[in-house]
Amino acid sequence: MEMGSSEVVNDRVIIGIDPGSNIMGYGVLHHKGKDLILIAYGIERFEGEEEHLMKIKKIFERVIALIEKYLPDEMAIEAPFYGKNIQSMLKLGRAQGAAISAALSRQIPVVEYSPKRVKMSVTGKGNATKEQVAYMMTKMLKMTTIPETFDATDAIAIALCHFNSRNAPVKSSKSWGAFLKENPDRMK
Amino acid sequence: MEMGSSEVVNDRVIIGIDPGSNIMGYGVLHHKGKDLILIAYGIERFEGEEEHLMKIKKIFERVIALIEKYLPDEMAIEAPFYGKNIQSMLKLGRAQGAAISAALSRQIPVVEYSPKRVKMSVTGKGNATKEQVAYMMTKMLKMTTIPETFDATDAIAIALCHFNSRNAPVKSSKSWGAFLKENPDRMK
Repeated sequence: MEMGSSEVVNDRVIIGIDPGSNIMGYGVLHHKGKDLILIAYGIERFEGEEEHLMKIKKIFERVIALIEKYLPDEMAIEAPFYGKNIQSMLKLGRAQGAAISAALSRQIPVVEYSPKRVKMSVTGKGNATKEQVAYMMTKMLKMTTIPETFDATDAIAIALCHFNSRNAPVKSSKSWGAFLKENPDRMK
Repeated sequence: MEMGSSEVVNDRVIIGIDPGSNIMGYGVLHHKGKDLILIAYGIERFEGEEEHLMKIKKIFERVIALIEKYLPDEMAIEAPFYGKNIQSMLKLGRAQGAAISAALSRQIPVVEYSPKRVKMSVTGKGNATKEQVAYMMTKMLKMTTIPETFDATDAIAIALCHFNSRNAPVKSSKSWGAFLKENPDRMK
């Protein structure tokens, strides 16, 4: 994706993480000069681990491994402020705590965004569906393969939201707006 | 505290952690031969940190520092399965996730106990108050100074609960029972 302004010169890697105790999604964006390139994305499954503590360990280890592989400058995570129930929030909090600890232990700054903010940033709609978010990611970042679950596209959206929040927000939102106008049928 | 059985020969350090996003309590027990010695306890305050993510970072770093200082063989944490509200559970989960990640990243096994189990193990009453738990800790572990908050005695109790669960539970519970009989006024 080409940036709106040629004045912005940058070289920075952003990793987006969508941590959960069963599946963790990740997306890695490289902002280089005028380009924003999706260099990696995927999911990690922890469903096979019966013990909850082993899931926490794996989340921590996988985030460390992603950091060592892609050397991100910043990490963005989604921080939902709601949940099905108390018990699921405790598990989600632990998963987030492991991912955050991994990044901060390697001196990677972490920024949180609410799900609504992420959706608004990447689709222009705070209540966009996961399908709509996924569609925008595949179009905007020229993804040639569609991830098998929304966890990966959600994570990419988190990274993109962080990118948008720091880079020429006016120009960015104009491009988003232009894209939305060209694709009105996809964003009802 | 002398152990009930001289057949148990052991040399092992247990750290108990009571993680919270504002205060973290810790207690370190050394089980050596027939003796169980409280070698350290204390609290760490994170209230000064305005940013929640910095609290998570500090919890992780402090647990790593405690591990490097006392070289525990095992870590025990309290895992409440209830909370005031969804938001506080997410924060608590993050604090726990940071502490668990710190231990597991250093290959220290982690065991969780419910608050009820901890209270039952160290006082014989599942609904004991924090004051009662603190009183038992000071008596049983011959503490000469009383910690300023219950977070430290709670953490010591968690470590002791883990010790009890692995070591001659019948003999231990007999000694607890004997202690309770000698101090019936303190455990109403």
